[in-house]
Amino acid sequence: MTCDSALLTDLYQLTMLQGYYDQNREELAVFEFFVRKLPKSRGYMIAAGLAQVLTYLEELRFSPDEIDWLASTGYFKPAVLDRLAAFRFTGDVHAMPEGTVFFPHEPILRVTATLPEAQLIESRLINLLHFQTLIASKAARSVLIAPDRLLVDFGMRRAHGGEAALLAARASYLAGFSGTATVNAGRCFDIPVYGTMAHSFVQTYPGESQAFIDFAKANPDNVVLLIDTYDTEAAAQKVVDLAGTLHRQGIKIKGVRIDSGDLAEHAVKVRRVLDQGGLRQATIFASGGIDEYKLAALMARKAPIDGFGIGTSLDTSADAPYFDCAYKLQEYAGIARRKRSEGKATWPGRKQVYRNHDDDGFMCGDTVTLEGAPCTGQPLLRPVMRAGQILAPQPSLTESRAYAKGQLSQLPEALRQLSDASDYPVIISAELQALAKSVDEQLLL
Amino acid sequence: MTCDSALLTDLYQLTMLQGYYDQNREELAVFEFFVRKLPKSRGYMIAAGLAQVLTYLEELRFSPDEIDWLASTGYFKPAVLDRLAAFRFTGDVHAMPEGTVFFPHEPILRVTATLPEAQLIESRLINLLHFQTLIASKAARSVLIAPDRLLVDFGMRRAHGGEAALLAARASYLAGFSGTATVNAGRCFDIPVYGTMAHSFVQTYPGESQAFIDFAKANPDNVVLLIDTYDTEAAAQKVVDLAGTLHRQGIKIKGVRIDSGDLAEHAVKVRRVLDQGGLRQATIFASGGIDEYKLAALMARKAPIDGFGIGTSLDTSADAPYFDCAYKLQEYAGIARRKRSEGKATWPGRKQVYRNHDDDGFMCGDTVTLEGAPCTGQPLLRPVMRAGQILAPQPSLTESRAYAKGQLSQLPEALRQLSDASDYPVIISAELQALAKSVDEQLLL
Repeated sequence: MTCDSALLTDLYQLTMLQGYYDQNREELAVFEFFVRKLPKSRGYMIAAGLAQVLTYLEELRFSPDEIDWLASTGYFKPAVLDRLAAFRFTGDVHAMPEGTVFFPHEPILRVTATLPEAQLIESRLINLLHFQTLIASKAARSVLIAPDRLLVDFGMRRAHGGEAALLAARASYLAGFSGTATVNAGRCFDIPVYGTMAHSFVQTYPGESQAFIDFAKANPDNVVLLIDTYDTEAAAQKVVDLAGTLHRQGIKIKGVRIDSGDLAEHAVKVRRVLDQGGLRQATIFASGGIDEYKLAALMARKAPIDGFGIGTSLDTSADAPYFDCAYKLQEYAGIARRKRSEGKATWPGRKQVYRNHDDDGFMCGDTVTLEGAPCTGQPLLRPVMRAGQILAPQPSLTESRAYAKGQLSQLPEALRQLSDASDYPVIISAELQALAKSVDEQLLL
Repeated sequence: MTCDSALLTDLYQLTMLQGYYDQNREELAVFEFFVRKLPKSRGYMIAAGLAQVLTYLEELRFSPDEIDWLASTGYFKPAVLDRLAAFRFTGDVHAMPEGTVFFPHEPILRVTATLPEAQLIESRLINLLHFQTLIASKAARSVLIAPDRLLVDFGMRRAHGGEAALLAARASYLAGFSGTATVNAGRCFDIPVYGTMAHSFVQTYPGESQAFIDFAKANPDNVVLLIDTYDTEAAAQKVVDLAGTLHRQGIKIKGVRIDSGDLAEHAVKVRRVLDQGGLRQATIFASGGIDEYKLAALMARKAPIDGFGIGTSLDTSADAPYFDCAYKLQEYAGIARRKRSEGKATWPGRKQVYRNHDDDGFMCGDTVTLEGAPCTGQPLLRPVMRAGQILAPQPSLTESRAYAKGQLSQLPEALRQLSDASDYPVIISAELQALAKSVDEQLLL
């Protein structure tokens, strides 16, 4: 079971390619990826996943055994299988940098390639862009609420499969999280990894104190003790009681974790126990069913919590586990195209998005127009791949994270709310509207 | 970025192992996986993902470069790294067969292994069991509503990453779907693969008719034409008009697909156009934002639709993208254990689940009790792995699918509804309650 297979695609991409190859329909096509509408309660989105898309495009090829398997299905003509065996993506890509704030109707990525090339990549391209954009957009909400706290992705176990766990760790870090508990995400993406102990560790001991001591000795540089297995405040007192013994062995208690109950109430009591016991430096870390709404409530109650593990709600984007997006044909053989299906019409042509800022540096309005049309503002789509080659230099994840932070700092106040945000102005230019009209008129029905 | 790495785990598993190895805490531990409560609107769940768990356990090992990377973090002692390098899972597993209907508080899988072995596997085991169980349980809802229709997983693009797409295809097929559009799922799991054409194929042509003809010639055995790019009924008429020409070339039109608008209304009109045009054999396939609720509405309206592509709502389990589950220590070194954290208490000991049926063969009540305790009914947990080796024979996916069908047929009527179902009786046996009480009394606090 591998995610890197060229066969990770929808069957119709391959049956369409059979049609295109059959009829030599290989002129240049332009597809764009965009969001149709924001998920509920969201006022903006954060572009993410481009790095994985570019790697996918550069490495995409069918192995001999994949071709053999396709042949065994009986769906494909030998000539088509030969074309697939030689398939390489040789097109151009323009995209908003990862970490860019964007809005509906704005293409965040444009592919310019022969029709079969631009078509084949659709399914995996959407799969990669949709998920990381979903998670980065979700994570940003917590980051804006608690910008000075440690925020750690705890979501691997309920992420939808292994790749989701890895990419959620990446996307949340991009959006400003401090790190993740998922070890392989640390390795793959050079993200800080956090974690100490679970309830099971404590449960294997007859009492908590010995469990704490043994853990501390085994992990002397990372002593964060889980104190809610039985009675939270009693366990906090046990931590205080054994701090002296550990201190004499050169081991410092970094902090405690609370994972159940009323986190704010427990945190206040635990803080008092720790402070009175001389452990003012020890931090309190909280986890257990936290999302951005609970985080906001904890911050509003001024809960003395230094860091938060945010798991399921983040990795599944639980309140909005998908958004409405598409990768659509906008031009073929030099002629602009559009889809007009009910409720799903698209804007034709190759587009660019321009952003304007007010005098205080906040974003104040975008315009979607045709590439090359005159427009004020800062263009957001940039070339990132030419003739199938990634253009250097691409930003590192650390650089993208810094860029995302800058983007979030430019969000107008009205969009920073957790509840339904006010609409951000996105203008469809007169040139683009005129082109759509002309495409409709020229269509032979 | 690979999902098969032993590093696909939470950091705390490794820091806990450091503690266990340090103190030679390697006696036998028993962990069980269970669901705490049903997601909203669900009356039952379907166990899925066991096959992937067993493969994971059998193949789990740290490669030399993974050990090197762990060493580079500075978190781990050389002796611990040596243990990890030699790590093998050598424990036993009992589980409900994939496709089993189950309820909260019922363990669906039990691991008996040395404490470090049983601990390390937690994160990935939950990740695999949770997701497929989530999707199988979601898919079963559509299967029960439309048991005689073609149901195809269309969700790859908005699945949460590549592995989710593959596993959602598997889990939905297990629960009774007819197949998937995801090619690699067809290859990996031998699931039927469906798919024909997208709007982009039609849009590259100046008009629809030539697009239909070219597609049909290229894919003569799989002619399902997408008719909603511009005007659905007009396109249906075009299909009728070119049927004769194609027929003379030996090409039969299998069907049409509608992907937008009021699907029932379009289906009625399109059915009329096709029937009047002599295409009574051509099927109508519908897609576009369908979930089990829309499916129920379409069935209630007797929409003449032969098959459905169900995508985003299925692959993300959109109305309930996760459920509350846990993998918890129930016994260590021969002594039963339990967690008592607020709202998260667990039942201790090694358990078995017994199911009873009424005279008509419908499930009528389960009992969770201690393994070996006397109980009426059919035991649901069976041995599936011994000493790290998968016990043969394990059922094929086709066999599990047939078994799931049988399970669904035994569901009482009250649980088959889409809205909040009535509670199914799950009794916690007197033996189990007594053990929990005794564990609490013996705990040294």
